[in-house]
Amino acid sequence: MRFEGEKATDIRIAYIGGGSKGWAWGLMSDLAAEPKLSGTVKLYDIDYQAAANNAAIGNRLNGREDVSARWTYEAAGSLQAALTGADFVIISILPGTFAEMESDVHLPEEYGIYQTVGDTVGPGGLMRALRTIPMYVEIAEGIERFAPDAWVINFTNPMTLCVRTLYEVFPKIKAIGCCHEVFGTQNLLVDMLKDLKGLEGIARRDIQVNVLGINHFTWIDQASCRGMDLIPLYREFAEKYGEIGFEREPGRWAESPFRSANRIHFDLFKRYHVIAAAGDRHLAEFMPGTWYLKDPETIRSWKIGITPVSLRVQKGENLLRRSERLTNGEEEFPLKKTGEDTVSILKALVGLESLVTNVNMPNAGQIGGIPAGAVVETNASFRADSVRPVQAGELSPDIHALVLRHVMNQETVLRAALTRDKRLALAAFLNDPLVTIAPGEAEALFHRMLNHTRAYLPGWEL
Amino acid sequence: MRFEGEKATDIRIAYIGGGSKGWAWGLMSDLAAEPKLSGTVKLYDIDYQAAANNAAIGNRLNGREDVSARWTYEAAGSLQAALTGADFVIISILPGTFAEMESDVHLPEEYGIYQTVGDTVGPGGLMRALRTIPMYVEIAEGIERFAPDAWVINFTNPMTLCVRTLYEVFPKIKAIGCCHEVFGTQNLLVDMLKDLKGLEGIARRDIQVNVLGINHFTWIDQASCRGMDLIPLYREFAEKYGEIGFEREPGRWAESPFRSANRIHFDLFKRYHVIAAAGDRHLAEFMPGTWYLKDPETIRSWKIGITPVSLRVQKGENLLRRSERLTNGEEEFPLKKTGEDTVSILKALVGLESLVTNVNMPNAGQIGGIPAGAVVETNASFRADSVRPVQAGELSPDIHALVLRHVMNQETVLRAALTRDKRLALAAFLNDPLVTIAPGEAEALFHRMLNHTRAYLPGWEL
Amino acid sequence: MRFEGEKATDIRIAYIGGGSKGWAWGLMSDLAAEPKLSGTVKLYDIDYQAAANNAAIGNRLNGREDVSARWTYEAAGSLQAALTGADFVIISILPGTFAEMESDVHLPEEYGIYQTVGDTVGPGGLMRALRTIPMYVEIAEGIERFAPDAWVINFTNPMTLCVRTLYEVFPKIKAIGCCHEVFGTQNLLVDMLKDLKGLEGIARRDIQVNVLGINHFTWIDQASCRGMDLIPLYREFAEKYGEIGFEREPGRWAESPFRSANRIHFDLFKRYHVIAAAGDRHLAEFMPGTWYLKDPETIRSWKIGITPVSLRVQKGENLLRRSERLTNGEEEFPLKKTGEDTVSILKALVGLESLVTNVNMPNAGQIGGIPAGAVVETNASFRADSVRPVQAGELSPDIHALVLRHVMNQETVLRAALTRDKRLALAAFLNDPLVTIAPGEAEALFHRMLNHTRAYLPGWEL
Amino acid sequence: MRFEGEKATDIRIAYIGGGSKGWAWGLMSDLAAEPKLSGTVKLYDIDYQAAANNAAIGNRLNGREDVSARWTYEAAGSLQAALTGADFVIISILPGTFAEMESDVHLPEEYGIYQTVGDTVGPGGLMRALRTIPMYVEIAEGIERFAPDAWVINFTNPMTLCVRTLYEVFPKIKAIGCCHEVFGTQNLLVDMLKDLKGLEGIARRDIQVNVLGINHFTWIDQASCRGMDLIPLYREFAEKYGEIGFEREPGRWAESPFRSANRIHFDLFKRYHVIAAAGDRHLAEFMPGTWYLKDPETIRSWKIGITPVSLRVQKGENLLRRSERLTNGEEEFPLKKTGEDTVSILKALVGLESLVTNVNMPNAGQIGGIPAGAVVETNASFRADSVRPVQAGELSPDIHALVLRHVMNQETVLRAALTRDKRLALAAFLNDPLVTIAPGEAEALFHRMLNHTRAYLPGWEL
Repeated sequence: MRFEGEKATDIRIAYIGGGSKGWAWGLMSDLAAEPKLSGTVKLYDIDYQAAANNAAIGNRLNGREDVSARWTYEAAGSLQAALTGADFVIISILPGTFAEMESDVHLPEEYGIYQTVGDTVGPGGLMRALRTIPMYVEIAEGIERFAPDAWVINFTNPMTLCVRTLYEVFPKIKAIGCCHEVFGTQNLLVDMLKDLKGLEGIARRDIQVNVLGINHFTWIDQASCRGMDLIPLYREFAEKYGEIGFEREPGRWAESPFRSANRIHFDLFKRYHVIAAAGDRHLAEFMPGTWYLKDPETIRSWKIGITPVSLRVQKGENLLRRSERLTNGEEEFPLKKTGEDTVSILKALVGLESLVTNVNMPNAGQIGGIPAGAVVETNASFRADSVRPVQAGELSPDIHALVLRHVMNQETVLRAALTRDKRLALAAFLNDPLVTIAPGEAEALFHRMLNHTRAYLPGWEL
Repeated sequence: MRFEGEKATDIRIAYIGGGSKGWAWGLMSDLAAEPKLSGTVKLYDIDYQAAANNAAIGNRLNGREDVSARWTYEAAGSLQAALTGADFVIISILPGTFAEMESDVHLPEEYGIYQTVGDTVGPGGLMRALRTIPMYVEIAEGIERFAPDAWVINFTNPMTLCVRTLYEVFPKIKAIGCCHEVFGTQNLLVDMLKDLKGLEGIARRDIQVNVLGINHFTWIDQASCRGMDLIPLYREFAEKYGEIGFEREPGRWAESPFRSANRIHFDLFKRYHVIAAAGDRHLAEFMPGTWYLKDPETIRSWKIGITPVSLRVQKGENLLRRSERLTNGEEEFPLKKTGEDTVSILKALVGLESLVTNVNMPNAGQIGGIPAGAVVETNASFRADSVRPVQAGELSPDIHALVLRHVMNQETVLRAALTRDKRLALAAFLNDPLVTIAPGEAEALFHRMLNHTRAYLPGWEL
Repeated sequence: MRFEGEKATDIRIAYIGGGSKGWAWGLMSDLAAEPKLSGTVKLYDIDYQAAANNAAIGNRLNGREDVSARWTYEAAGSLQAALTGADFVIISILPGTFAEMESDVHLPEEYGIYQTVGDTVGPGGLMRALRTIPMYVEIAEGIERFAPDAWVINFTNPMTLCVRTLYEVFPKIKAIGCCHEVFGTQNLLVDMLKDLKGLEGIARRDIQVNVLGINHFTWIDQASCRGMDLIPLYREFAEKYGEIGFEREPGRWAESPFRSANRIHFDLFKRYHVIAAAGDRHLAEFMPGTWYLKDPETIRSWKIGITPVSLRVQKGENLLRRSERLTNGEEEFPLKKTGEDTVSILKALVGLESLVTNVNMPNAGQIGGIPAGAVVETNASFRADSVRPVQAGELSPDIHALVLRHVMNQETVLRAALTRDKRLALAAFLNDPLVTIAPGEAEALFHRMLNHTRAYLPGWEL
Repeated sequence: MRFEGEKATDIRIAYIGGGSKGWAWGLMSDLAAEPKLSGTVKLYDIDYQAAANNAAIGNRLNGREDVSARWTYEAAGSLQAALTGADFVIISILPGTFAEMESDVHLPEEYGIYQTVGDTVGPGGLMRALRTIPMYVEIAEGIERFAPDAWVINFTNPMTLCVRTLYEVFPKIKAIGCCHEVFGTQNLLVDMLKDLKGLEGIARRDIQVNVLGINHFTWIDQASCRGMDLIPLYREFAEKYGEIGFEREPGRWAESPFRSANRIHFDLFKRYHVIAAAGDRHLAEFMPGTWYLKDPETIRSWKIGITPVSLRVQKGENLLRRSERLTNGEEEFPLKKTGEDTVSILKALVGLESLVTNVNMPNAGQIGGIPAGAVVETNASFRADSVRPVQAGELSPDIHALVLRHVMNQETVLRAALTRDKRLALAAFLNDPLVTIAPGEAEALFHRMLNHTRAYLPGWEL
């Protein structure tokens, strides 16, 4: 990386999971719009062809009039090739295939356990973690060997355990985990100001929030906009829309299982007096199974839906076809800002700007009462070669209890995965709030699910 | 208190709950058998007559041939009168009456929530805590004012929150909580050595254990006897008796709801590889409601029973009649060692001996990963005017998760009780592992129970 | 305080020490230049006339063409009058008079102990602290009573113990301590970039630094400008100027005892490999007396001088005369930006902007290895109604040792002052690095100094 | 190790430094007197002949009428041979020779720095640490490889850094450091009870103390005997003998530089109100050089003397001749109890008894305010295969400041030794309280001393 005037050039990015048709395309779009950065992105993927296609798509951007920056994309033949010389490592992988995800999300339904997403906590999140952790062990070892000074940005779920594994394996890693769920809640607060106060033109970044918790189960205990305290307003908002829900376009939740009407947001506020800062589909999975996900009717009553893996499969097929068209030029790649902070973060880390935003990092005191080293989500100050968490304070004991339960489960899962300890993994499974069935049944489910993901559990005695 | 040669004389004990017919009689018995201690016990009780009867019973002991020490018993007319001048304060009260206990234990059964004891955690333990904490606020304020240098020994349940409240109100208090549940597990290990190894004549105190956890949910991760590691032996023991259970006299569990066959002990060991150190009836209440207390059949299959409050009422009536006979001399008070450590503790605190035993105190690092100030149970070193916890290490993350959930609930209950915050109390209620029903039903139960105990909730908005 | 569009109006500031002719005038100047803020400043001073004069000076600004904001200044007759209704409290007092300062700074010289400033640590700083702490107890009690929600900004020295006392007395206070010494080092780095790299036009705020330590003994372990790592450059700079020193205008240090040539900066870097971030005159006082302040020759060889109190007296007299001229309009108040962050901080706290800058606050984990609650200096994130420290990491053990020695002395001084414990104060005195004389002599000095400041030690047995 | 009835047999001890003529002979004596233990001691020494002689001396004991236990002594040809199979490892080595010790203790005298012992802190202790740490790295690696489950007992000085290095290299080591200095203070309290109260027959172990600090700079803030609070008595004692000193046999201090008259004990109590618990010769070295060790006259006035290395050389030669006589049977080995706790500790660790005594271990919370991992001295509870520190509380801030300064220096020395960093070692050297000379001179002394010990600093750039 070099500085030329006020531009940083020759930035080298390794993209692990570089065949991705979601995050990778988004990054290309965002990089293309940022005139102050340029360099090379090495795309590494276990599906080399997918990476090569993305390289072709990315390189087609150069020369386009609407593109402000020159980036070279290369498919890398190995993790080592991608990492060597990298200033930044971006990780966004699909751990396993849709077949395992099918088991993660839908098998528990046979036992009366319903999951809206199934990639973070709950039976599905736990299984996904067990197969992801060994992959992240390998990635962390690669980074330690080939790019120890690089900044690493993770987007893969389960976010907490991915980042946690990176630090466990290579404690001096400079890694962060980035997630847009908090942004969604900031946007909800923007909508609230319009709805309640008629204020227009407020941007997400105008909403200052104090963030604390763990990924997808983050909380906001202080929020303001132009000096206005938003907590009392949110109380009013939650009362107004608690029953019917709030959407920018009412009714849309029913059209897509990726949407919601924020009813769980409002219910949690009513109960805990603090704003939950993730989408309803994620939040629901952190609470006891009897609450929001008891059965399909209950789920529907909360105006959310289960995201069926079949839908993901279908979306994947569409994206594959689109990738082919983009690769061979049949379709032009559309530039569209993602709303993610990635490019801002890159700019801050190279020294072009200063930024405070939320991030997942090991707890070093930024949240009180959470064990040191557990990965938590809070704001951090981003500057040249530096990400320093901002002290977020402490959750009130009722919420702390809910968060800590997951933190401890995650620590248990990590240790189970690293030591290949089935007993320990089962203990975490049984302690998950969604697992409200009798231990014998739960044990049977656990073994069936584990068996489905066994291809990704090398060295386990199954 | 004075020393005369190797005896400590003129010891002044304030006994709060001095009308008690259980613990108070036990203490009289144990004091009578200890030749090195003598002094005065001031019995204070909201039922003055009960205290006066006990004073009469205690004073009758003086002069008896089988009694080794002279103690004077006096009924005190007020807390202040009892506390003033005290070297020791012993607290053993019944918070409320059997009417509230009836609601605590049995009302949740209407909602499918079963409790074996109902005085520590679960819906019953929580309600009991809410009405006990204000009483302990008053006691703590009294101690701060009238006996700030006294050592305070608590026996009342919920143990953890009683001790926690004392320290919250008067942080410099010298208070400990004593409980015999760990002793029961030590005795089980004695029985094990006889059963598996044919060893006879081993005493409870020969079993060295490392204790860590919270009261009634304590764990032993290191146990030895004469250099023998007892953990592998216990594995064998748990396998041998896991299904059928183990009792000194097989089958007795079915005769009394105060007994058990240790099946839950064995099941927890199988799952967590560490010895749970409380009776099965207590342990069951700390685990999810779907495990051991799902319904009466499940409970019976684990060879434990629910302790009906009607039985306590009946026992209470018997004790009352017996108290009358003892008071007026119709029946002679029988001396019988309780097996409690109280007298050993008194001897250590006055400087007559040195002792290491388990005790409940605020965490100051004796257990890793538990918030500072939360009351935990570990070993401590007892010496003259000094109780210093021994570092017990850290629980493995799977067990830690279980314990921490209750710790956080207890912190929530404490704050709810001190600030009279119904919302907060409900949050803790919903997070209790026994509450596996839907939140709406749980909320209804909560309000009914709270209403039943309202006489003991001064200042609450109900 | 209210928002009108993008302006915050009706801000109420209580200024304790409002008769000040330095900081108060600077604040007037800075407020006058900021169009987005307006309101009222209540000036409170034990010298009422001084406050009244300043009010007159301040109010004369209104209507002037070069003034962008309307502020009303009022002299307050009591602390209560000043505090009531305040959104902000600014504290900048002179604790005692120049007579006590004369003793603080110069009496130790009779014993061979030399101090360049004498207001932070060393014999002088300690005495100053003993008389300042009772004043801050009173101020803290006033804030708790009359302005508990106000943000409090302290400028008085000894900074650390002033802020520490505020939190000790009123733990929920929202107080920070602001100091410009770090800015001076940022400016030195600006000069360095010009000197070594020929870079022009760089502003202080372009220099991103990680700050950690205690006030006047702060350290910078990471510094960058536009992505450039400044630490290796500083090594080069320290080698180039280590012997001769560096000044913008060479030789100026000899003209004023408020200046230096940064030789101590360079020497400390050579020894510790981290940049000390305060002026040489302050830094010298934190190191052993044998190092930089051994005797007048040694002091001069480091190109610094002792600031004689007589000079302060003379400056004070000049300011007094000037104050009269300004009050009665003989002289026009000159607007001049101070370079302080105060107005930026006010803007951030009302919600007008977001800021990361250095500040003194109780340690809640922002620096590792420093006791919780001790006041430390690090960066913090400033936002609406929120100042949250940024995690600064940990000092290397050699520097940590130096800092911790002062931290512990300061904790000792605090306790000595609060409990009026002469023995404890002496223990801290003897442990100060500048006190390298024999304990008997040091004790004699201590008692003489204490006697000189006795008028400000109510309740002490002297 | 096996149990036969109430005896532990076949205990295997590895003795590193097994050619020792002090500690090794003492251990032989103590083992010979303990009927419940028997086994094998493997003596390893870099001087093989010395170990072989000791083996011969030890084996001659078997069969003697006054010997109660059978122990076999063997000289081991390598560290591996000694460690393999060991249940216990005892380490008591002389790091380097008297030549380096001569430089450690006496070279600083040329610069006006006097040391009474020179093996713990001060210039001599620091140099000794630098050459000892690499030896302990090797020992720790050997233990990790060949005896990872053994209990390790260290007697070598500098105690703190020896134990600290063992844990740094092999964090799971089960190591403790044992020192008798606290026993000396307990004996002083026994003498005090006789002197002030006429009490006879009190044993050292009857004096219950709470111990906290670091080795040779340990403090007792609570002391009792049979319920009597000894702190007020000690105040009286310190006043009575503060000026003239106290000895069992008055005047003996002048006869031997290993003795003292406790004047520094009394002076420290007067200043800090807590009992210092090490010999005066050690305590003096932890305080500033201007206090007790300013010059030979000052030293003599405190009724202590410098221990000249020439005296150690002469004692060594006498012991060598004696060793020869003992080896070939010319002289019979005299049994004499040492007063050390080693055999009691062995008995507790094998499970024969329970013990609470003082020990050096990494801080895991037993002392508040000291960094985790730093080696501290407190009481611990010794049981079968378990040493658990007892919580000792926190030192008052004035004493804490003194202790922490050494703790931080020791952490600096450790890191300097492990990374062979001369700059860091110098920083610690300059921060030692005995180094009160100008930094330039101190630097010259440092380099000369370092040069003298260079043979033991492999890999350093000197």
